Amino acid sequence: MKCAIVAVGTELLFGHTVNTDAVFLSQQLNLMGIDVLYHYTVGDNPGRLSEILKLALSDCDLVITTGGTGPTQDDLTKEVICEVMGDALVEDSHSMERLIRHFERRQRPMTENNLKQAMMPSKAVVFDNDNGTAPGFALESNGKIVICLPGPPNELNPMFEDSVKPWLMNRSSEALYYRTIRTFGIGESMLETKLLPLIDGQTDPTLATYAKMGEATLRIASKRSTEEEARKAVEDMIKRVYEYVGDYIYSTDDESLPELVGRKLIEKNLTMSTAESCTGGMIAARMTDISGISAVFERGIVTYSNGAKMDELGVSGETLERYGAVSPQTAEEMVRGLQKKTGSRVCVSVTGIAGPGGGTPEKPVGLIYVGVMLDERMEVFELRTNNTKRQWNRNYTVLFALDKINRFIDEMGE
Amino acid sequence: MKCAIVAVGTELLFGHTVNTDAVFLSQQLNLMGIDVLYHYTVGDNPGRLSEILKLALSDCDLVITTGGTGPTQDDLTKEVICEVMGDALVEDSHSMERLIRHFERRQRPMTENNLKQAMMPSKAVVFDNDNGTAPGFALESNGKIVICLPGPPNELNPMFEDSVKPWLMNRSSEALYYRTIRTFGIGESMLETKLLPLIDGQTDPTLATYAKMGEATLRIASKRSTEEEARKAVEDMIKRVYEYVGDYIYSTDDESLPELVGRKLIEKNLTMSTAESCTGGMIAARMTDISGISAVFERGIVTYSNGAKMDELGVSGETLERYGAVSPQTAEEMVRGLQKKTGSRVCVSVTGIAGPGGGTPEKPVGLIYVGVMLDERMEVFELRTNNTKRQWNRNYTVLFALDKINRFIDEMGE
Repeated sequence: MKCAIVAVGTELLFGHTVNTDAVFLSQQLNLMGIDVLYHYTVGDNPGRLSEILKLALSDCDLVITTGGTGPTQDDLTKEVICEVMGDALVEDSHSMERLIRHFERRQRPMTENNLKQAMMPSKAVVFDNDNGTAPGFALESNGKIVICLPGPPNELNPMFEDSVKPWLMNRSSEALYYRTIRTFGIGESMLETKLLPLIDGQTDPTLATYAKMGEATLRIASKRSTEEEARKAVEDMIKRVYEYVGDYIYSTDDESLPELVGRKLIEKNLTMSTAESCTGGMIAARMTDISGISAVFERGIVTYSNGAKMDELGVSGETLERYGAVSPQTAEEMVRGLQKKTGSRVCVSVTGIAGPGGGTPEKPVGLIYVGVMLDERMEVFELRTNNTKRQWNRNYTVLFALDKINRFIDEMGE
Repeated sequence: MKCAIVAVGTELLFGHTVNTDAVFLSQQLNLMGIDVLYHYTVGDNPGRLSEILKLALSDCDLVITTGGTGPTQDDLTKEVICEVMGDALVEDSHSMERLIRHFERRQRPMTENNLKQAMMPSKAVVFDNDNGTAPGFALESNGKIVICLPGPPNELNPMFEDSVKPWLMNRSSEALYYRTIRTFGIGESMLETKLLPLIDGQTDPTLATYAKMGEATLRIASKRSTEEEARKAVEDMIKRVYEYVGDYIYSTDDESLPELVGRKLIEKNLTMSTAESCTGGMIAARMTDISGISAVFERGIVTYSNGAKMDELGVSGETLERYGAVSPQTAEEMVRGLQKKTGSRVCVSVTGIAGPGGGTPEKPVGLIYVGVMLDERMEVFELRTNNTKRQWNRNYTVLFALDKINRFIDEMGE
């Protein structure tokens, strides 16, 4: 099946928004064995959108549009799809009910233009939007399919996973199975280099690497006549991948490090507290994003100033004076002070120079110390990112700390 | 001048790479008053590239290609451009010299296929590449221009700034000016409804609304013969927009709430501390993302458990018992306790039910109390998001709290 992705939105042509929908959909479709041949982006202009849709449909069996499904006047994707596919918009009572309930729940008035969002092509299969007001749909005509999705990624991604993917899979004679392997501590190109013997000449399962901020992800996908066969092929490949890069793998189920650590803490009933300087609360924020974490997450302390480090964690003035706030000694006193104060079994401390300013030749930007304790075990890790980007350094440090905590938990025994 | 951007590269269609070149070029071109009408992405496939180039040239005066200019066999952008524009590749002696020097300097052997990179269309204006081996070029024919640029952003961006922009500026007669207005507390459709009298029938300046998580953004753009005129038109329109939705506007310069609050704190030398329960450190994390914030940000405390609220902030057991952790009384004691403990002038407390679990009929998911203090002034705000999504509730609460802090700062007088 050949596919084109058509993004609709003047904000993309202004460069205000990055077209992450095209990235997400391309990855997903490729995993499903659907070839993506083109990405198109047009503004909120019905004439040009119509032209592009016709062009895309002339080459491809499947065209997916993203965006232009909002309540406002310039949102015209549905109208243009109807025109091109020879259908007309009618009120979809199911969507209308959902829309009315959506506004009722929020106790917000529904404006006239919102009504537009319950209008769907008469022959469409409608996909509910659990995260916004614009439903999606699939419309078929003359062996061609147009799928219309809302633009915001937090609406599009779950709609694709929950509705579009199953709908598309039902039409395929083959079964797809894939797993996403998450690694930390290895770059994407190094990961690919190490896996080259497995990637080269491999047609099924396929292996593809992706880079995220500081993480490299590996997708292993197989398409066979049954799901069982595909699953077996993927699982056999995972075993082989472990032989090459096992030490870097922390999840074979696409779990993020906060999710993974959070789950283990809850399962093992391990209490946790955090003491952060340069990450400024990010570890606490990520951990408390996990639903149910309140059972084990006790306390987070952001000790940005030296005074706060002394007051809150009992770091000695002498240590701060002699070794500085960014030192293994301070990291150790922070994490020991935190455990003493909170009694939490898992404690972590972070102190470092996130940048872009504040570096010196001895203590450059990107020098970070992370202290980890689990019961009596304590270790301080030195991280040198060789990067001057504040956000990157902060994000990477969070993952670095969680990776260490994960290893501590795995190594604690039963 | 109407422009299309054509990205060439199969890696984009696999979703391995985000098309940041299109974002960069769109921003730059729009600022220069050049309308970007389309983004196209095609794989390393000469037939499809040729088809897209012809299509783009039929609508646009200017087509910019990115990528496919490397030394390998599948890099065919130049060849296809020549075919479409009726030119032929010839060796460019200037580029050849630079290429030879490039490899000499790096003491790396120049392979046969590198020679290809010094081949340029015979009628092209060549743009040097100071950061790689692929030069760019502009080629004109029959009133149409094709500009060919290398794909890597670290090569493309400086080549655009240093060579392409000056080359294009010499040809343009119009100037564009735009501003991005940020609002909080109003949805996108409500914003548009309120601004309808200004949007309807408006051709210049244009007004466009965009939704971000919990925020609505408004872009006002004008294209006139001079930048001064365009700027005046936009600034006049901003004044009119204030008359309609002024109460929701927090920035007319595309500043985010954390950036705005952080800047004001630093400018006014106001110290800040945070006490967070359901946001779990997110406010501290956002604030400490601001470079230079360490001058004023003192301490963040994540009091997830009741014990932590009592220990760290002196919330009384009786208050927690009688009113519960999620109550205006607890929010007040948290923020007062925080100020007492830290002495920070700006203090904020958050306690609420982020969900998805933990709600009751009286205290549903999405019920959040935010306490704000600035010196003696204290207020507790009740927020009911009517949303059960944990991430959404947490993110929205951060913005809600920062919006209140921003108003407190504005209202404090000098």
